[in-house]
Amino acid sequence: MKGKNLLYKGMRDFLPEDMIKREYVISIIKDVFESYGFEPVETPAIELWETLSGKYGDEEKLIYKFKDRGEREVGLRYDLTVPLSRLYATNREKILKPFKRYQIQPVWRADKPQKGRFREFYQCDVDIIGTTSLYADAELLKIIYVVLRKLGFKNFKIKINSRKIFPAIMEKLGEDEDKIYQFARAVDKLDKIGINGVKIELEKYGFSSEKIKILDDFKVVLNKKNDEVIEFFKNFFFGLNKGVKFVSEIEEFYNSALDFEIPESFIKIDPLLARGLNYYTGPIFETIVEKPKIGSITGGGRYDNLIGFFSGESVPATGTSLGLERIITVMNELSMFPFDRKTKVQLLFVVQDKKFIRDIIKNCENLRNRGLKCDIYFGKKDLRGQIKYALSRGIRYIAIIGEDELKENKISLKDLQTKEQRLLSIDEVYKRVILE
Amino acid sequence: MKGKNLLYKGMRDFLPEDMIKREYVISIIKDVFESYGFEPVETPAIELWETLSGKYGDEEKLIYKFKDRGEREVGLRYDLTVPLSRLYATNREKILKPFKRYQIQPVWRADKPQKGRFREFYQCDVDIIGTTSLYADAELLKIIYVVLRKLGFKNFKIKINSRKIFPAIMEKLGEDEDKIYQFARAVDKLDKIGINGVKIELEKYGFSSEKIKILDDFKVVLNKKNDEVIEFFKNFFFGLNKGVKFVSEIEEFYNSALDFEIPESFIKIDPLLARGLNYYTGPIFETIVEKPKIGSITGGGRYDNLIGFFSGESVPATGTSLGLERIITVMNELSMFPFDRKTKVQLLFVVQDKKFIRDIIKNCENLRNRGLKCDIYFGKKDLRGQIKYALSRGIRYIAIIGEDELKENKISLKDLQTKEQRLLSIDEVYKRVILE
Repeated sequence: MKGKNLLYKGMRDFLPEDMIKREYVISIIKDVFESYGFEPVETPAIELWETLSGKYGDEEKLIYKFKDRGEREVGLRYDLTVPLSRLYATNREKILKPFKRYQIQPVWRADKPQKGRFREFYQCDVDIIGTTSLYADAELLKIIYVVLRKLGFKNFKIKINSRKIFPAIMEKLGEDEDKIYQFARAVDKLDKIGINGVKIELEKYGFSSEKIKILDDFKVVLNKKNDEVIEFFKNFFFGLNKGVKFVSEIEEFYNSALDFEIPESFIKIDPLLARGLNYYTGPIFETIVEKPKIGSITGGGRYDNLIGFFSGESVPATGTSLGLERIITVMNELSMFPFDRKTKVQLLFVVQDKKFIRDIIKNCENLRNRGLKCDIYFGKKDLRGQIKYALSRGIRYIAIIGEDELKENKISLKDLQTKEQRLLSIDEVYKRVILE
Repeated sequence: MKGKNLLYKGMRDFLPEDMIKREYVISIIKDVFESYGFEPVETPAIELWETLSGKYGDEEKLIYKFKDRGEREVGLRYDLTVPLSRLYATNREKILKPFKRYQIQPVWRADKPQKGRFREFYQCDVDIIGTTSLYADAELLKIIYVVLRKLGFKNFKIKINSRKIFPAIMEKLGEDEDKIYQFARAVDKLDKIGINGVKIELEKYGFSSEKIKILDDFKVVLNKKNDEVIEFFKNFFFGLNKGVKFVSEIEEFYNSALDFEIPESFIKIDPLLARGLNYYTGPIFETIVEKPKIGSITGGGRYDNLIGFFSGESVPATGTSLGLERIITVMNELSMFPFDRKTKVQLLFVVQDKKFIRDIIKNCENLRNRGLKCDIYFGKKDLRGQIKYALSRGIRYIAIIGEDELKENKISLKDLQTKEQRLLSIDEVYKRVILE
């Protein structure tokens, strides 16, 4: 059996080179989350089937579901939102509201694996539970902005809208409330099927061609400034009960985002943003990059009726998910990583003669104590082979200790990049390598 | 349904308080691993059944095994050693030997949950692939030593032995090689059934009472110094082919450990250390603490025939696993954590009047930019309630901004521990809180 085939389809190994990139992105995300007062939690990979079932609509069939040895039905973590709701119910007496948590863990989907689509991937979720303040939603936009800027993203837009626009539209069109989901579902397909595709969908659902023209009104809006969009909404929904509610929410949400000092140019109010999931109740938002074409790299919104599901309460909540895998894909394609490293090791001690090993270890341990990442070559290759090993592994410096070095109580440090070699004291070696 | 019952048995949620401790331990472990030139990898949670089956002996029934939607038999990661072997085969052309990798990920066991025994728990494995040098094994002992010291462990012993002692014993006793496993299995139960229990087991396997006396010889050894133990072995196995091989290995292994500057008193050569797993071929080692009674907190050894299994090669390897969950249990029981923190948040901005919110956000964002972990209260409680919230959440400092503060362009900083309140500039607030 070939090695490749040993890996279950849709799964990935992460080698050191991959891990260095993943850890870099995750550490920036974690730092930003924590600077905003969010704290980490983890939930188990396996949840009871009762917890998972009925929560994901059509997608339920993509949950890895199985029975344990006691015939208990269980499933693998499918996202981080349902587990958050379950965690809240399980630990209610220990959780203070507002509860600001983040969670970075893999989830599993029994999906058909395709390019860029995996059966195991990480989600990074950040949610605030227990407040209705739109400042909480705005804070999430700021977090997205700060994370992406710190990662080096320059061309991105955070599209914002509110789910309240759909009842408002039904009111404006004189349609029944129960058509909201059909309308939202059609609009949600905009990126995939284009504006004409959406129109055809809406016709199928029985919207008249007169009413469908609302899409053209909204399309025009997409080229306007945010302030102008809000002005447009004020006129468009003037005097309508639900319309006014929507306008007041999107205006407050947008202004709160500005209060958080997000530059206007990074936010785009988009009345055609729908977000697929039905559980959203207020502000919704997602982030798109100009290139490569990859869909949204973050997505989220307010969902006031989900968290209290297991505990039987009403608990407002808002949150967003950062698409770690897509972010890494974009960063790879646009060469955005500020380093090109295959290894974390900074220095390799080569071993030419076993009789020096004690001195090599002694010096290496000294540098390790100071925090350097050092390795000693314990294989069987000669010096040439060891240098080749260091080069292939991507280690920049090698340290040589032999008769000559010991006499002077020094180390020969060779920079494999510049090919320069120098006889240095251990302090000098440390200072040189730490600067790398 | 009660919240507690929503959690699948044997699984745990980790709340921020737990996560702070876990992250602390893991970060020390990672730092030490990396300072020794090890690099991180991750493997998927789900492996093909072919990969897992036949690798775990009797324990195979504890693997979570199921079929995916395409009727493919798969199982959840059971340990990190078989996945390492599979990873090696899958990525062989990218992996340079010696390959030093560490892996910190959860594993799953379909076991009966008991106190301190979970169905999901983290393993921290560190392995060196592709070298037969006993310095590699010795380096692992040093890593264990450094990690435990950095975590604050003072009373622990790293017990060492070599699997080569068992053929040597058979040779000494004039028994067949095929009795090795019976002998090793009996000795492995020493901690559970005591020396007399082991004797009874050995009798059952047909060892004569004369031969069983070897245990008493070895028992005496346990109170001797390591050098004396080696001297004892030299006499005991004198002139015996396999005996001499064993003695030469344990002596070289022990001396290599001393070369790594591990204090003698932390190492104990123990001829009765067997380590359950049959795949070990050379040095074996485990760490025990004096209290609490908890079994070994690390375990490992050389296993030269496992890594090449999938790739069909012979690949020497040695590694050790740190028992993260047990380490945390011991640290909790002995109050070894150098902090008592429920939150990462350093400062909470209270909100008394919405009209100040813009100024509050401005100041808070300023401090976040400098790296402080700050939160703003977006709930509905009054000042008293907000202070109570900060106290319950374990946040030490609160920041107040109102009319008076704005007039002077300052912030009132209240230390909830000392109850002292001061009017400070933002720079002063930063300096004060960062010192915490």
